[in-house]
Amino acid sequence: MRLLFCSFFLLTALNAAAQSAGLLGFSPTAAEEQRALEAKFDGYLKAGNLDEWMKYLSAEPHHVGSPYDKKVVDFMAEKFRSWGFEVKVERFDVLFPTPKIRELELIAPTKYTALLQEPPVAGDPYTEQTAAALPPYNCFSIDGEVTAELVFVNYGIPADYEELEKRGISVKGKIVLAKYQGSWRGIKPKLAAEKGAIGCLIYSDPADDGYVQGATYPDGAYKNEYGVQRGAVMDLPMQPGDPLTPGYGAVEGAERVPRVGNPVLTKIPVLPISYHDAQPLLEALAGPVAPASWRGGLPLTYRIGPGPAKVHLKLAFNWDLAPAYDVIATLRGRTYPDEWIIRGNHHDAWVHGANDPISGMVTVLEEARAVSELVKTGWRPARTLVYCAWGAEEPGLLGSTEWVETHAGELTQKAVAYINTDATGRGYLRAGGSHTLEKFFGEITTEVQDPTHGGSLLERRSAQSRAAGGNALTSFPLYALGSGSDYSPFFQHLGIASFNLGFSGESSGGEYHTMYDSYEHYKRFKDPDFRYGATLVKVAGRTTLRLANAEVLPFEFSRFSKTITGYGQEVMALADNLREATAKENALIRDGIYEKVVRPGETLNVPEPKAEVPFLNFAPLQTGLRRIAGLADQYDANAATKLSATDRRQINQLFKDLERSLTRPEGLPRRPWFVHHVYAPGFYTGYGVKTLPGVREAIEQRNYEEAQEQIIKLGEVLAGYADRMAKIIALTE
Amino acid sequence: MRLLFCSFFLLTALNAAAQSAGLLGFSPTAAEEQRALEAKFDGYLKAGNLDEWMKYLSAEPHHVGSPYDKKVVDFMAEKFRSWGFEVKVERFDVLFPTPKIRELELIAPTKYTALLQEPPVAGDPYTEQTAAALPPYNCFSIDGEVTAELVFVNYGIPADYEELEKRGISVKGKIVLAKYQGSWRGIKPKLAAEKGAIGCLIYSDPADDGYVQGATYPDGAYKNEYGVQRGAVMDLPMQPGDPLTPGYGAVEGAERVPRVGNPVLTKIPVLPISYHDAQPLLEALAGPVAPASWRGGLPLTYRIGPGPAKVHLKLAFNWDLAPAYDVIATLRGRTYPDEWIIRGNHHDAWVHGANDPISGMVTVLEEARAVSELVKTGWRPARTLVYCAWGAEEPGLLGSTEWVETHAGELTQKAVAYINTDATGRGYLRAGGSHTLEKFFGEITTEVQDPTHGGSLLERRSAQSRAAGGNALTSFPLYALGSGSDYSPFFQHLGIASFNLGFSGESSGGEYHTMYDSYEHYKRFKDPDFRYGATLVKVAGRTTLRLANAEVLPFEFSRFSKTITGYGQEVMALADNLREATAKENALIRDGIYEKVVRPGETLNVPEPKAEVPFLNFAPLQTGLRRIAGLADQYDANAATKLSATDRRQINQLFKDLERSLTRPEGLPRRPWFVHHVYAPGFYTGYGVKTLPGVREAIEQRNYEEAQEQIIKLGEVLAGYADRMAKIIALTE
Repeated sequence: MRLLFCSFFLLTALNAAAQSAGLLGFSPTAAEEQRALEAKFDGYLKAGNLDEWMKYLSAEPHHVGSPYDKKVVDFMAEKFRSWGFEVKVERFDVLFPTPKIRELELIAPTKYTALLQEPPVAGDPYTEQTAAALPPYNCFSIDGEVTAELVFVNYGIPADYEELEKRGISVKGKIVLAKYQGSWRGIKPKLAAEKGAIGCLIYSDPADDGYVQGATYPDGAYKNEYGVQRGAVMDLPMQPGDPLTPGYGAVEGAERVPRVGNPVLTKIPVLPISYHDAQPLLEALAGPVAPASWRGGLPLTYRIGPGPAKVHLKLAFNWDLAPAYDVIATLRGRTYPDEWIIRGNHHDAWVHGANDPISGMVTVLEEARAVSELVKTGWRPARTLVYCAWGAEEPGLLGSTEWVETHAGELTQKAVAYINTDATGRGYLRAGGSHTLEKFFGEITTEVQDPTHGGSLLERRSAQSRAAGGNALTSFPLYALGSGSDYSPFFQHLGIASFNLGFSGESSGGEYHTMYDSYEHYKRFKDPDFRYGATLVKVAGRTTLRLANAEVLPFEFSRFSKTITGYGQEVMALADNLREATAKENALIRDGIYEKVVRPGETLNVPEPKAEVPFLNFAPLQTGLRRIAGLADQYDANAATKLSATDRRQINQLFKDLERSLTRPEGLPRRPWFVHHVYAPGFYTGYGVKTLPGVREAIEQRNYEEAQEQIIKLGEVLAGYADRMAKIIALTE
Repeated sequence: MRLLFCSFFLLTALNAAAQSAGLLGFSPTAAEEQRALEAKFDGYLKAGNLDEWMKYLSAEPHHVGSPYDKKVVDFMAEKFRSWGFEVKVERFDVLFPTPKIRELELIAPTKYTALLQEPPVAGDPYTEQTAAALPPYNCFSIDGEVTAELVFVNYGIPADYEELEKRGISVKGKIVLAKYQGSWRGIKPKLAAEKGAIGCLIYSDPADDGYVQGATYPDGAYKNEYGVQRGAVMDLPMQPGDPLTPGYGAVEGAERVPRVGNPVLTKIPVLPISYHDAQPLLEALAGPVAPASWRGGLPLTYRIGPGPAKVHLKLAFNWDLAPAYDVIATLRGRTYPDEWIIRGNHHDAWVHGANDPISGMVTVLEEARAVSELVKTGWRPARTLVYCAWGAEEPGLLGSTEWVETHAGELTQKAVAYINTDATGRGYLRAGGSHTLEKFFGEITTEVQDPTHGGSLLERRSAQSRAAGGNALTSFPLYALGSGSDYSPFFQHLGIASFNLGFSGESSGGEYHTMYDSYEHYKRFKDPDFRYGATLVKVAGRTTLRLANAEVLPFEFSRFSKTITGYGQEVMALADNLREATAKENALIRDGIYEKVVRPGETLNVPEPKAEVPFLNFAPLQTGLRRIAGLADQYDANAATKLSATDRRQINQLFKDLERSLTRPEGLPRRPWFVHHVYAPGFYTGYGVKTLPGVREAIEQRNYEEAQEQIIKLGEVLAGYADRMAKIIALTE
């Protein structure tokens, strides 16, 4: 009892300390006002709104171009208008293929015709709306008809092809069968085609996504045997957005490049299937038993093939343009109307999308509504707020990308930050973003309380870390942003500081991009009373409102310096480790070790020795990192709030463009759209981030000449960033 | 080409070097003679004999007391006699329960009656001999009839019960369902009973032992859905051998202690089942989903229970005595007839036992036959050779233990070393044993060649290590001996230096202790042409013959010192790690971390804080280790071979009893039968070894007072060992 009392006292004391501490970017008086404003904001929030709006917005399938998606757009535009925002609905006509023919058969050694359908389930009337729904497919697969032997390639990532090569198994002229997960799905057909495959099937294995994890829908949250994950397979790490208008907005009259041969489309036909449909295919494979780490949860011996399983795959699509509607709701700032804080979420779904994207979308609406209540009291934000509901995110971030490309000039001038949400559930706050804003965001996580357990969101994350055997967290960590939602064009194409926010960890399920991502499913398994949704409104609302009202924009350097120094150490260690591993592997080849361990009856394909990894000159990187570290602690955020209005305005301008100083206009090698040189989605991981991507990926791809060039370029980027830091610091001295 | 040529040249040079180097314990002339003898020995070996004898010895089920086991015994006795050995068949009448009633039913929420049978399979006529075979059962389970709810306990090891306790799940009054593996099987009912369970079922999950690994029998080597692993469940880590004659031989007229309440019998009824029979039981469980690491390969969601699955288990056994026959074949030594080199393998099987034990048994026969050929040329070993074929190993090392207990006095005086084999397959040589003989054994592994890949057996093990990412091996490592075969009474009860030898790594399968361990299975999947069997004869034969002929017994100290110093560091680190882990866990409890991470809808049972781990006084252990290390390199093995015959005889006596100086007459805490203080089977792991067991297990069990006592005792043991080292070294100076 004493122990409990002490803990309670400690927590209360800590919270009080957090509440009374200063706010980054605010003078003490302004901080007090801001907190009072946020208390009011919290008072307006109603979890019931999230529930009601989700029920409406996810009532029918609403993919790009569907009638119900237009209803969703109209509903939201009307809401924003009713709350006093200036509302524009911007339309872009984008390429959006939908299925015309989907056929998959096992033709040897046994026959099986794949169902390719998700049947309605008892107790969930939404799953009966099959007529209005898009059936399972991968968007931006090319048309094609292929017949070939099958090869099981595990997740179909580079390491898997190395395993196949060691066994002397080629996918040339074959159709690959890959499991979902291990990479973003679009990587699987991309790599398969590079290796010579002529078709690609992707399925969800029950070990990763099905009965192995728990009861399946409708008994439980997990993927039943018929569930199929839809999703885009365009070459997103090369360039998101409308494939026909690369780099510019798909507005009326814009030039469209040819569709056939378009570089972001897949090179081979691709189809996602259920584990019900995958099982007969896997059962029909012979050849070597798959390595232990490749095996899934189906009751069979996983084998690699090739064959004797032979499949026939036929796919054809309607290659029409469809309208992507972006709802843009603006509230003009009182003091700095030309500094924009942008807050967005997409509204299009693969089917009903109660979780993805509506669970996030409704938090944007509720935040905007609460802001409108504040406005009714006479308050206005110092900076302009822009609330956005993006269309056509699912096929490849089309709505947000076209908007960003269309308004690139204005955004470059005005945007301070972009705050994104998407599907959100319950559990622990996860946040990715610009590390110059990590300290700022950390303040919010010490103040907002966990709605189930009490204590701050930081404390709960810290408890999770400790329960998993790690250390207590003294500050909230932002993960590095890769891709997979609408922050990508803001962040990686324009260099606008960004966040991506959501709750997860206690709401897992198998509904992602299936017919079963319904209101019914969400209410049973995700965030039944929307308490974490409401908490997300508090977090994102504070992020928006503090950025909008800060006297000095709340960027700072210490966390960024520490983080990027860590990335620098990683890429240097990567080169060293690759050098060591290459030498070791070459010695195995030279000494005939592979021949000595080949198992009876198995074949062996001894790999070719690889070129030794040279020592790279990392000095430009090291010099840049050291200079940033030296400057990082010299910025005095308190002092900045005491400066004259002119100086503050100047600092704010410098901060606003700070993230952009990490970009280079020519972009990354072979993908000029991605200009950020600290964070990018991986060329062979997809959504997964690669930090210092130019250098890191060149080393990974063993392109040492390019690695050296990229180190020099990165050194220039860091020097430019440090120059800007020095200017900011000089203003506060 | 040049590279290949170089490698070949290097290998040839290395082999030549190995061949011409001295032999530990032999003068240069004697070494040359010994090598000539071994070349002759190799020349006599015929792999075809292994094949022919296996076919005969595994032709019918031959468990303890079966008619065919007597035939096996007579066949071997006759063989030994025909080869000129002096042969005795010693009979011990031991307790050997066989099943009378085996019933298992699921009675709620659905009905299922377990098959408990292994049907014959196509293409293997041996599997049709069901009438002569013992059906699946666990030997030394008590009789019992129980009905209760089921709880799935993963492998049923201590860590699993900690997980259950965290979830507030008790097995009190329940029947547990445990997977095979993770520990020796006897640990599962022992722990379950300690936790209050009233029955125990053990099954083979296809993820560990079945279709997940590969094609199942008869299509492939792995366990089919009906295969059941039989096996002993007596409390072997407490004491092996006949339960009715603890510590003394089960000879005619020996006193028998009562069977009922016998401490080595299980406390609850236990039955092994197939995954075919386990599946309906697992499907009928509800409750929390099992942790990811608990889940197996059946197509279902693994849940813990308890219930609603309810089972009825009824077991009754014939509690008769059965004859265990040991065949003892002696060849008297010419120079030191009272120094014995003992070589053995068991002959009894659970069913046909082609692999276990016949694959090893036939290598003993072929070794003895080749030795008899040498004898025909006029040669005799310097020391006496004793070849043994043990009965009743499967129920609990009964034949060897009763023989060792009966002849303990003579063995203590005469035995120099015991060399064991058991089931053996193909792949890589694995050898466990006394580390004072590691260097000696290492010489053999540099000379005997791998029969498939060429190069020495050490080189092949080294290749395996390198292919797995490890370092090249410069010497052959002996693993520490736990239990599970007939070396245990020699090694751990009498302190006789021992080896356990076999090939494995390329002959895995699911036949262990099932109806499917047949000649047919062995020929298809284990060592089809017996080339590794013949290689094992070369290895074990050299081990026997070198020990028999060495002028100075080939013990030495450097490897032992290095190894035991490592064990000492491990137990000290264990205490430190436990202290740190305890403090960390107590802090989690104190800070309410468990409450903060409990998932929605799950229950939580916060563990009680544990007492802090005190700092122990390790000085007695450290002092002993340091003294041994200081002396280790002072022994000059070459000088020893040049001493007078009297001095050599004295050194040999000191070496003969060296291993015994690591024992204490009172044995380990609560298990006086186990007297070795460096190596013992784990009290809660079974076969798995615990080195420095007195100290290590006391720390693991958080019994710090006993740990301190055991450190002092171990210090005394090490001091005694060092005194003997000093005496040996003094003789060579």
